[in-house]
Amino acid sequence: MDYMEIVFALKAILASNDATEFAIVERHSHPADLAAALAKLTTADQCRLLGMASPAVRAQVFGYLSAKQQGALTAQFDRTRLAELLLHMHADERADLYNQLPEPQRDAALPALAQVEREDIRRLASYPEKTVGAVMTSDYATLPPDLTAREAIEELRRIAPDTETIYQSYVIDASRRLMGTVSLRELIVAAPHARVGDLMTPDPVSVPANAPREDAVRLIAKYDLLALPVINGGDMMVGIVTYDDAMDIEQAETDIDFRKVGAVSELGKGLKEASITLLYRKRVFWLVLLVFGNLFSGAGIAYFEDTILAYVALVFFLPLLVDSGGNAGSQSATLMVRALATGDVVIKDWAGMLGRELVVAGLLGATMALAVSGLGLWRGGPEIALVVALSMQLVVIVGSVIGMSLPFLLSRLKLDPATASAPLITSIADGTGVLIYFAIATAVLGLPGVD
Amino acid sequence: MDYMEIVFALKAILASNDATEFAIVERHSHPADLAAALAKLTTADQCRLLGMASPAVRAQVFGYLSAKQQGALTAQFDRTRLAELLLHMHADERADLYNQLPEPQRDAALPALAQVEREDIRRLASYPEKTVGAVMTSDYATLPPDLTAREAIEELRRIAPDTETIYQSYVIDASRRLMGTVSLRELIVAAPHARVGDLMTPDPVSVPANAPREDAVRLIAKYDLLALPVINGGDMMVGIVTYDDAMDIEQAETDIDFRKVGAVSELGKGLKEASITLLYRKRVFWLVLLVFGNLFSGAGIAYFEDTILAYVALVFFLPLLVDSGGNAGSQSATLMVRALATGDVVIKDWAGMLGRELVVAGLLGATMALAVSGLGLWRGGPEIALVVALSMQLVVIVGSVIGMSLPFLLSRLKLDPATASAPLITSIADGTGVLIYFAIATAVLGLPGVD
Repeated sequence: MDYMEIVFALKAILASNDATEFAIVERHSHPADLAAALAKLTTADQCRLLGMASPAVRAQVFGYLSAKQQGALTAQFDRTRLAELLLHMHADERADLYNQLPEPQRDAALPALAQVEREDIRRLASYPEKTVGAVMTSDYATLPPDLTAREAIEELRRIAPDTETIYQSYVIDASRRLMGTVSLRELIVAAPHARVGDLMTPDPVSVPANAPREDAVRLIAKYDLLALPVINGGDMMVGIVTYDDAMDIEQAETDIDFRKVGAVSELGKGLKEASITLLYRKRVFWLVLLVFGNLFSGAGIAYFEDTILAYVALVFFLPLLVDSGGNAGSQSATLMVRALATGDVVIKDWAGMLGRELVVAGLLGATMALAVSGLGLWRGGPEIALVVALSMQLVVIVGSVIGMSLPFLLSRLKLDPATASAPLITSIADGTGVLIYFAIATAVLGLPGVD
Repeated sequence: MDYMEIVFALKAILASNDATEFAIVERHSHPADLAAALAKLTTADQCRLLGMASPAVRAQVFGYLSAKQQGALTAQFDRTRLAELLLHMHADERADLYNQLPEPQRDAALPALAQVEREDIRRLASYPEKTVGAVMTSDYATLPPDLTAREAIEELRRIAPDTETIYQSYVIDASRRLMGTVSLRELIVAAPHARVGDLMTPDPVSVPANAPREDAVRLIAKYDLLALPVINGGDMMVGIVTYDDAMDIEQAETDIDFRKVGAVSELGKGLKEASITLLYRKRVFWLVLLVFGNLFSGAGIAYFEDTILAYVALVFFLPLLVDSGGNAGSQSATLMVRALATGDVVIKDWAGMLGRELVVAGLLGATMALAVSGLGLWRGGPEIALVVALSMQLVVIVGSVIGMSLPFLLSRLKLDPATASAPLITSIADGTGVLIYFAIATAVLGLPGVD
């Protein structure tokens, strides 16, 4: 059933109050679609419908709801219902939900869970946000090295219902140290009596639990992994990050980078869900800061007031020249921010990149100087043409070098390179552009210049 | 072995010419790392080392090399070697490589392959770039519905060596119509005599082969799929897109969007691999175009030349005001471009988003008007303060609305919304800002204005 069919079906079920109908919808819909359809209904209706769902499906659907919707629903749940939900959710989603619950609900729900689940929730919920630990799950399959392939498959069959993936198993020793990985594919293809320890791939790629979550994404993408094992400080295996969570993290991280490049601070949610006050708060900081950045341009202009009064035609070229520097700088900065984010470029590449940037910017500047010199000739004669062409050449080179270097500098200072947003680069390049332009004009035109 | 260890080991092997050493490196390295290490060597050395690799590993490593490196290597291969390579590569990577080969090499290699591989290569290579068909693979597992679970597992074991994933199988009828999907997990957990037709999930999500490749990524991410089935116009199954390819596509598409937002045309490769002339060509178009866009700002200034001469202090606020409009517009545009790319927002949301944008921009404008009115008071007295504050309020609202609406408009016209780059929005908002500012100044200050 597709999304619209589900919405209609759910409305019909609410009208008829027929739980058997819900079982049919449940069987023919993907939990992601069911969650999207539920999101269209009131919290009360969501509550009634989820009450008809089987515990497993309820937990799955719950995992696809937004944090806000989850909060509204759990506020309606009593402790038994909440504990049952927590029990059936994936370990990572469960820990996320637990982190969001208000204190009284946490205290109410926890005692209803078994010791092992309680400890698991507390452990997963304890990792700081945006670390690998905060996104990993503890539902993974481990195998001892001395099992045979046949026994291993039997063991995987047994634990399949409670395990996020059985396609990748982790071979650990008695102290939970990660020895290797073995895939279900390898187990199935192998001779039934082959030992897991001989079948496994030794020294697998892993990631520390306290590493930033992007590290997990990068490793999963690089090695085409289904899941990446996570180890703690003592080299013990503590969880896995699955490829589907990696895709979600990748999208969230790209959202953040995109917004930063547009000079919007981190929203933490989708654009549609963001409230007006949140949008205001996340945008006003940079806008006001950049106003004060632009004061330098204004001050530069004020400094050259006499030049302007003597030759007001110069102002015609002002936006064109300073914007070109800003535009060239924005191009360089955006290319660099993304390349640093994907690991295509690292800090030590700076010098090499700078050399290339100088050549590219020199060529770009020359092209644009040529384009505007004709314009200068037409509007103000050969002297203006010379001023405008020289300024353009210099402004584009300086803008590009600033745009290219700032992300490196930020990265070097352990700050996020994406802070080098197009508006920030534009403001810096504008201020520099004003100075370059009027300085060249004063020199070439032999104007009174500065007192 | 990690990357640096592999580089050292490969250099030692080249010195000793010991192929048995290579077998050890091969067994202890991930093909991705082996490819990265090889990329540090000359093409001749790469050729020698790949000659020592087993055919399967050689094909795997080859799949991780860049298109440029693949081209340099295959130019050295004779037809037997090339045919062997094509035979061992994954179907999708093979078709990509085939598409890149020069005509004579294609003609030389094809006859050495079996009929079925030849047809497969031709079929996959025939889909237009950036469609689902161009990224799908034909190495997938199909099962007839009347097999038992035990027989199905036996069949998967048999085809495992030639199949990209055996974890998801596709149940098809006699005319290759997709009936459902069944996972290896479901097969393993099921009773051995259960029929595949009863175990399968019917009506699975699928994507047409001629759809844009982003559609496949979106579906895989939404439904957390390992692989997505691809169907042709006649509803027949023709391939799958795997999650790891989806991650690569997602990254490539985000690269493109990022660059467009920075006003850089599509590079088609990593920043480090891009040549100086490519970078020049991809950047110069927008830079020159935007110069002419800025002529409007210049013309606006020229139009109000008398106003400027009468009140040169106004020029101090010019960069500050016009840039604020551009910055607010860049913020809105970047938010909207990304939201449209991820599907968070769709075209019909425009009116609702516009209403919200007006409120947010109104608040932002008011804040910034307040901030600059003090500045106006200090530099020029109450009248200038009024002009500056009014202009700021209006400039920010107009800039935001332009920035927010342009991506929608482009999307509506079936153009890429990411073309609404920060520099483009800045240029448009600048021109508008100049007009707003001087028009308000002329009116409030009762200046001579325009003849």
